[in-house]
Amino acid sequence: MVQVQVVENILSANDRIADQNRERLDQAGVFSINFMASPGAGKTSTILATHALLKDRLRVGMINGDLASTIDADRAAGAGMPSMQINTGGSCHLDAVMLHNALQNFPLDQVDLLIVENVGNLVCPAGFQLGTHLNVLIASIPEGDDKPYKYPPMYRGVNVLLINKIDVLPYFKFNMDYFRKGVEILNPEVVTFPICATSGEGVGAWVDWLADQVKRNRR
Amino acid sequence: MVQVQVVENILSANDRIADQNRERLDQAGVFSINFMASPGAGKTSTILATHALLKDRLRVGMINGDLASTIDADRAAGAGMPSMQINTGGSCHLDAVMLHNALQNFPLDQVDLLIVENVGNLVCPAGFQLGTHLNVLIASIPEGDDKPYKYPPMYRGVNVLLINKIDVLPYFKFNMDYFRKGVEILNPEVVTFPICATSGEGVGAWVDWLADQVKRNRR
Repeated sequence: MVQVQVVENILSANDRIADQNRERLDQAGVFSINFMASPGAGKTSTILATHALLKDRLRVGMINGDLASTIDADRAAGAGMPSMQINTGGSCHLDAVMLHNALQNFPLDQVDLLIVENVGNLVCPAGFQLGTHLNVLIASIPEGDDKPYKYPPMYRGVNVLLINKIDVLPYFKFNMDYFRKGVEILNPEVVTFPICATSGEGVGAWVDWLADQVKRNRR
Repeated sequence: MVQVQVVENILSANDRIADQNRERLDQAGVFSINFMASPGAGKTSTILATHALLKDRLRVGMINGDLASTIDADRAAGAGMPSMQINTGGSCHLDAVMLHNALQNFPLDQVDLLIVENVGNLVCPAGFQLGTHLNVLIASIPEGDDKPYKYPPMYRGVNVLLINKIDVLPYFKFNMDYFRKGVEILNPEVVTFPICATSGEGVGAWVDWLADQVKRNRR
């Protein structure tokens, strides 16, 4: 009982800070996304591909969470995005406090869209709202078609599902109907885009939809 | 300070139960492995391939950890392995208590080798010893070559590294030298086997090495 109480207190404290993050982002006129996925599903590649197609319409920035290294933030900075690295130490996910602290130093006046790349993990990030406007999950073909069935909290909690590495579909046993059925059961409202971040296939449709969301949020 | 204390207490309690698990496995004459990996790196496929090559020499069983579903335990049972499913609910990793409880009901007298498949996650399982004889990490080519740099605790804490899905190397940008350099820095002693679990490529070398470990442990 004590443990349950502690966990509930932590989550409710997290949600309070998440609300503050949203308020701060809205005040700055910045639309924000929380990108979640397994390790290596292609979060950074998708962010770079999104930026490449959006940069003439919107100013895109990135905050990256990893246990260690600055590999992803360096890639984003190399592409010309304002970017910041959060090293979580041992923690398996970002939380609202980590984003809150990062936002203190992030140049929000230089971006219209802020993409937060969470730690690569299909479990823990699902439990911690950051205060972003959208939660986006990147699935990837090589991971296999059974992931919705094995990681339901993650699939249940997202607004958008990008199915990445669609180019290697011929090389893997991946039953798209079985995968989509698993998603449908958990999250019938989710907006889905099949993409290949490295070739750019399908990224245009996702980016157009996203630009429209940013525009609607401004009204 | 209170939080640090609580975490230390949990880990030290876990290690005590892990020692008990090891004792129980040794008494039963069962060699055991903790298989860890990202979601979809091929843990279950590798277990099935290992079983297929070992089954005439050793009796292999499997305990599978997942947030939800019995997909993997069903696959193992379908292949004729004594198998058991642990559904962790929300938890992102197995711990020694979960394995301890499972061992109460697992037919240890029917196996020589017990493979424990952990929850798909490159972060949390690294912090919780289960009491198994070996910790094995499965990396996979589609995940990318930067994972040792981003998930150092996992790469640091394993005895064996299986590099899976080696068959799709031509379709991904994966610099094997860069990957191996990252592994070498963290864990110079790790024993490495490149494999393709679905085609069986390289699995023979891993299985021969493993059979030898089981034999040595019996002496």
